[in-house]
Amino acid sequence: MSYPDVALKNKNSIQLEHGLPMIERWFLQQIFKAIGPAPVRLVLKGGAEMSPPGVSPIATVMILDRLTLAKLVIDPEMAFGEAYADGRIQVAGDLAGVLEAVYESWPNGREGASKYQWLMSKWMNWLQDNTPRGSKSNIRHHYDVGNDFYRLWLDSQLVYTCAYFPSPSTTLEAAQEAKLDYICRKLRLRAGETVVEAGCGWGALALHMAQRYGVSVKAFNISHEQTIYARRRAADEGLSGRVEFIEDDYRNIRGAFDVFVSVGMVEHLGVRHFADFGEVIHRSIGDRGRGLLHFIGKSHKGDFSRWIRERIFPGVYAPTLSEAMNILEPHNYAVVDVENLRPHYATTLEHWLERFEKSSEQVSDMCGLWFQRAWRLYLSGSVAAFRAGALRLFQICFAGSQSPLISWTRAPLYTDLKPSTEDTEWIHAMS
Amino acid sequence: MSYPDVALKNKNSIQLEHGLPMIERWFLQQIFKAIGPAPVRLVLKGGAEMSPPGVSPIATVMILDRLTLAKLVIDPEMAFGEAYADGRIQVAGDLAGVLEAVYESWPNGREGASKYQWLMSKWMNWLQDNTPRGSKSNIRHHYDVGNDFYRLWLDSQLVYTCAYFPSPSTTLEAAQEAKLDYICRKLRLRAGETVVEAGCGWGALALHMAQRYGVSVKAFNISHEQTIYARRRAADEGLSGRVEFIEDDYRNIRGAFDVFVSVGMVEHLGVRHFADFGEVIHRSIGDRGRGLLHFIGKSHKGDFSRWIRERIFPGVYAPTLSEAMNILEPHNYAVVDVENLRPHYATTLEHWLERFEKSSEQVSDMCGLWFQRAWRLYLSGSVAAFRAGALRLFQICFAGSQSPLISWTRAPLYTDLKPSTEDTEWIHAMS
Repeated sequence: MSYPDVALKNKNSIQLEHGLPMIERWFLQQIFKAIGPAPVRLVLKGGAEMSPPGVSPIATVMILDRLTLAKLVIDPEMAFGEAYADGRIQVAGDLAGVLEAVYESWPNGREGASKYQWLMSKWMNWLQDNTPRGSKSNIRHHYDVGNDFYRLWLDSQLVYTCAYFPSPSTTLEAAQEAKLDYICRKLRLRAGETVVEAGCGWGALALHMAQRYGVSVKAFNISHEQTIYARRRAADEGLSGRVEFIEDDYRNIRGAFDVFVSVGMVEHLGVRHFADFGEVIHRSIGDRGRGLLHFIGKSHKGDFSRWIRERIFPGVYAPTLSEAMNILEPHNYAVVDVENLRPHYATTLEHWLERFEKSSEQVSDMCGLWFQRAWRLYLSGSVAAFRAGALRLFQICFAGSQSPLISWTRAPLYTDLKPSTEDTEWIHAMS
Repeated sequence: MSYPDVALKNKNSIQLEHGLPMIERWFLQQIFKAIGPAPVRLVLKGGAEMSPPGVSPIATVMILDRLTLAKLVIDPEMAFGEAYADGRIQVAGDLAGVLEAVYESWPNGREGASKYQWLMSKWMNWLQDNTPRGSKSNIRHHYDVGNDFYRLWLDSQLVYTCAYFPSPSTTLEAAQEAKLDYICRKLRLRAGETVVEAGCGWGALALHMAQRYGVSVKAFNISHEQTIYARRRAADEGLSGRVEFIEDDYRNIRGAFDVFVSVGMVEHLGVRHFADFGEVIHRSIGDRGRGLLHFIGKSHKGDFSRWIRERIFPGVYAPTLSEAMNILEPHNYAVVDVENLRPHYATTLEHWLERFEKSSEQVSDMCGLWFQRAWRLYLSGSVAAFRAGALRLFQICFAGSQSPLISWTRAPLYTDLKPSTEDTEWIHAMS
């Protein structure tokens, strides 16, 4: 896939590298020193250019002013995001491909960040802390952009989390439906059970669980637009009696349930609040319940891209598995199953990006050009991060120490929609 | 299952609780205070007895002298193990059932341990540290008891780790074979690849991988008896050219491989040595390799039973998932899949215990009565710990950041022995 950003002009006037003024050459060298030998051609407005020796560039990044050039040296990630969104950087070629190449070439991930970058990152953590008030502001920034906007590029059910593609060629619609069902089957939902969902988006999972599995659901969300939409859908589908959408913070979940599920919310907790979240889970399902957490994670500790936190997802934090264990281990929850769906999120994001590009004019009309460029960068960067493995998608199934429902093997997830009789008999014998 | 230990004599002379001398009553009360209201009847040699009010005892534990009674109050876990092995405690009824009931009733797991117990536990950690020399001594203590002994109660291939039962009624032989194959399929082994195995037991997995999947294996082990046995098997089966059994410490693994596998060795590392182990993995398979770790784990941090460490498994430590991540996260390995096979280990151990009981006279003749009783307690306690959920069995699949081989879904593990063409095509596209 390729999303031509701007056609390169004045190609004939491009200077050879050895003809660069010394200062520009130094700046360009510093950028490559920071990002590693990524196969891109950096071009300055006057036409001067540089690319790493011996590699064949996959795209051209044009830097339109010298201030941007200087900022890229000091703080490359933040400066790139800001300048791309403003149009002061233009990319000719596959933006996601460029970003993936930079992920691959970046020396030691982003560990080489300067003290300035480190300090700015910590300062941002403090500003965006997910207190009850902070969470509301952080979540509304992103999820209350408007349902019409999300309708342009999400699937028809507005599922805004990683889909599950039984095969890479499954359609997005089918893959989101498959994901909803996969979660229900991993949880082994049974008719009559009660489920609490923390962070329910536009309600697709809650409604799927109630309609297909006969459970009752209380679903919490602090996005006002999403809650309104979900309630209307529940009413339209005659499910209001079994699915209650509550516009409130996860910290205010009350009541006893059989099952706890949270899809795409752990990222919005902030690592400082994991213990609180574990308390909420344990208060809700105790030692006999079971649950599933679905979230974006990483393989080593560290903050999310500062530009993404500044412009797209304030307060976001993708934990490692060991950090996520701080939610479950204090309550002696058994991790039953962890699946890493990283390639499925890369594919999901490719679908979203393709749809987004097809609607880019409408996005500009609706939200402005800056917004359209910022969101293109966010979606492209996410494709790149999941392709390159900088981000993962973890689904963790867990069960309380007294939970009577543990699957004998995982085979029924793939071979049969219902557990075998023998399996069920064993479960009763163990409980 | 029930393994009658001793028939209760002088039943008629048993005193009622209110007739107990005050000192004995106090001791018995302290024991129940430590272990919680477990449904057991404690009986002293004179016939005095006590059981928690309102529960129906499932077994009788007879304490044959007052010194043992006193020791049980001070340090119940250690004292029970020592006295049971010596025959100063006799159990009438299902020993595994008693131990499981105590696991269930024990207040806050073993967190209520006294300072004395805590100190003794840390002292033992220091004594049994798994340095290269300590490991050799620790491993030989257990695994060099003698192959003839293990032949009495393991399966015919001498696989001394958790089996995989496709159904609860699978035989032990078939379940061990299924486990070996399950690991190969989780690793997606391909003919011609190179595998290094750390801690290979009697060699069954290494031989299975070479014979069924056409890979070359270097398998490391510091148990002398096991290595001799494994080499002979390789020669007998004409596999010596493709499987090399090396009697050496995992720290001395050298060379480059496609795959790293370790089944039942992480428990013997000691949590202090996890970083070293991660270094060995990364040195062996780099960023393009993949691997599997299979080990006994826990849901919250803490040392293993002190008696087990003193008498059965010196140096053993069962990590939580977050602790195990200290092996993988420093090298940016992606956790691809975690499966908790806890119920499968309970079943495996039930098979072993049943076979052990059938051979108990031979065990006594071979190794003495003390040894027979100590090992019965160890196997029964392990059944109890896996049934009660105090222990888990984790299989973690991981892959390097540049690994070209990641499965698209887990379905082929259950539906097909080979990945589908579409799956393979996707893998080549992503690599």
